[in-house]
Amino acid sequence: MKKEGSLGEFDLIRRFFQPREAEGAGAAGVILGIGDDAALLDLPAGTELVAAVDTIVAGRHFPHGTDARSIGHRALAVNLSDLAAMGATPAWATLALTMPGVDAAWLERFSTGLLHLARANGVVLVGGDTTRGPLTVSVQLMGHVPRGAALRRSGADAGDLLAVTGTLGDGGAGLAFSTAPPEARPRDRDRDGTGTGTGNLDRAAVLDLIHRFEYPTPRVEFGVAARGLATAAMDLSDGLVGDLPKLAQASGLGAHVAVERLPLSAALTRVATPEQARDWALAAGDDYELLLAVPARRFAALEAAAARLNLRLTAIGELVSGSAVTWSLNGAKFVPAVRGFDHFMD
Amino acid sequence: MKKEGSLGEFDLIRRFFQPREAEGAGAAGVILGIGDDAALLDLPAGTELVAAVDTIVAGRHFPHGTDARSIGHRALAVNLSDLAAMGATPAWATLALTMPGVDAAWLERFSTGLLHLARANGVVLVGGDTTRGPLTVSVQLMGHVPRGAALRRSGADAGDLLAVTGTLGDGGAGLAFSTAPPEARPRDRDRDGTGTGTGNLDRAAVLDLIHRFEYPTPRVEFGVAARGLATAAMDLSDGLVGDLPKLAQASGLGAHVAVERLPLSAALTRVATPEQARDWALAAGDDYELLLAVPARRFAALEAAAARLNLRLTAIGELVSGSAVTWSLNGAKFVPAVRGFDHFMD
Repeated sequence: MKKEGSLGEFDLIRRFFQPREAEGAGAAGVILGIGDDAALLDLPAGTELVAAVDTIVAGRHFPHGTDARSIGHRALAVNLSDLAAMGATPAWATLALTMPGVDAAWLERFSTGLLHLARANGVVLVGGDTTRGPLTVSVQLMGHVPRGAALRRSGADAGDLLAVTGTLGDGGAGLAFSTAPPEARPRDRDRDGTGTGTGNLDRAAVLDLIHRFEYPTPRVEFGVAARGLATAAMDLSDGLVGDLPKLAQASGLGAHVAVERLPLSAALTRVATPEQARDWALAAGDDYELLLAVPARRFAALEAAAARLNLRLTAIGELVSGSAVTWSLNGAKFVPAVRGFDHFMD
Repeated sequence: MKKEGSLGEFDLIRRFFQPREAEGAGAAGVILGIGDDAALLDLPAGTELVAAVDTIVAGRHFPHGTDARSIGHRALAVNLSDLAAMGATPAWATLALTMPGVDAAWLERFSTGLLHLARANGVVLVGGDTTRGPLTVSVQLMGHVPRGAALRRSGADAGDLLAVTGTLGDGGAGLAFSTAPPEARPRDRDRDGTGTGTGNLDRAAVLDLIHRFEYPTPRVEFGVAARGLATAAMDLSDGLVGDLPKLAQASGLGAHVAVERLPLSAALTRVATPEQARDWALAAGDDYELLLAVPARRFAALEAAAARLNLRLTAIGELVSGSAVTWSLNGAKFVPAVRGFDHFMD
């Protein structure tokens, strides 16, 4: 029986996730959105359909107690990053939301986070399913790419440069700071004079890093711009050490990375030791940056495309023949002590 | 760190869900399947993309301890039923699987159940995401329908007949029998001479009903056949009492159902009282039958299409002007005492 004041599944979806009229009406390619057994969508002529799915679970991909607005943002961001890595234009998402009960304030913040990022990337939510159970959020994202133009992991050639967007390690550091007890935070250590920043500067840097973790920016526009320039791409949601071997293997190649070239943010270098920063940049997930292979002669063009989006692009190494993935630090052989994040590994 | 003998996420997906070469190679419309950041799919010319998502949770949509093969089957069946209700041809699925740990025997049975039903319906699994957490299974299914030909909930006209496929109530009864203590099962009561069947007959009927719950057959071929004949359709996964008002409302109409016409299986009538059978047929979910609106002049053609698939089609009432959904039993006004299954309601 329906409980007084509770919301049925149908009402829930309508109330929080159905786009308001101004956004939903005539949204690109949406013939029929939420409210029927399935959505009807119009794929642009001359394109291939691109589809990805990712799940985030409380206590696993985000700390218990994380702001629901960040959870909504990240649930979509992880999929946007996957489509960015294909050079695809995102278009339509479906949501499978399992949660312990109906909490209107939580849902309001969650849907705000998800729908805000969706709008910013031209994505319309076209289907949803809400179920009672432990908090689990699955988003599937669909989009499109001109026929034959998708960036795959397998297209790299020996000699291609390896490049990454943005800076690495910020998401991992942000996660660590957001869950660490206050006495373990670098900014507190710095107050004792053992660090390089002042208390005020470090506090701002830590907040920057936590924001990077909570509200990552998937590189969707850059992924589209990289089509025809990069030969292969993947997203770094699981960390460079774990992910690079996948791109190399898919391309039938080995790779070499000069670890001192990994791009680090000012915020990260301000609050972490060089060793900590390097570990986060090598192995932490949650950065949502892209790893690309690009022929040396096209690197400048790819860099210019990034610059037009106010995005940094850094060459960190190259693809090599063979199958070994090797690392060096200032010319010396280097063995990463850490491995990529695996959702069944910790 | 990687634990000895455990499987990484990547290995898991490959081992259990990547179609074997003979099935995956050249599967219809799959340009790039599992193994990259996203799948690349080729939508047939002249079609619209159809997408649905559904989640099933242990203890909510199936009893704890349910055979993993049934869980895999039902996770896909619920989505196949949604696409059947649109008259769509299913093509590609993605899976978001959250589970407490890696249990190879469980995964083997789960993937067998899911992939067997997928093959039977021409569906290829093109993406997956596995995460540790409480058992939750989300499947998104994509397919296609000729441009403009989809069956919606909103297309019915006043005077159209209401028809249902198959028989109703079997899934609900099967669920009840599979979870009831032995002494509460009708076949045991019947042994005391208060029922109509013999112990042996009833045992077979109960097993039939449990099988209907565990391995429902979504009406995919019939959904395709109903295009151009039915004016509206939806699937009955949540029960007639809960679902019919949605179709009526979407079409801007009311509806009337003659409850004595609800099609009941021989198995159900053998093990349940008429009142129990009626309640299950009216309100239980899990039947995965279709509810359709069809002009009276086209009912015979729709019935013939069903017969070609060895499927029963039964007229149970009609759409009427206004907005009231009413029920009668042998000519007398009838008020269902039960309401449709709602995943936030019990």
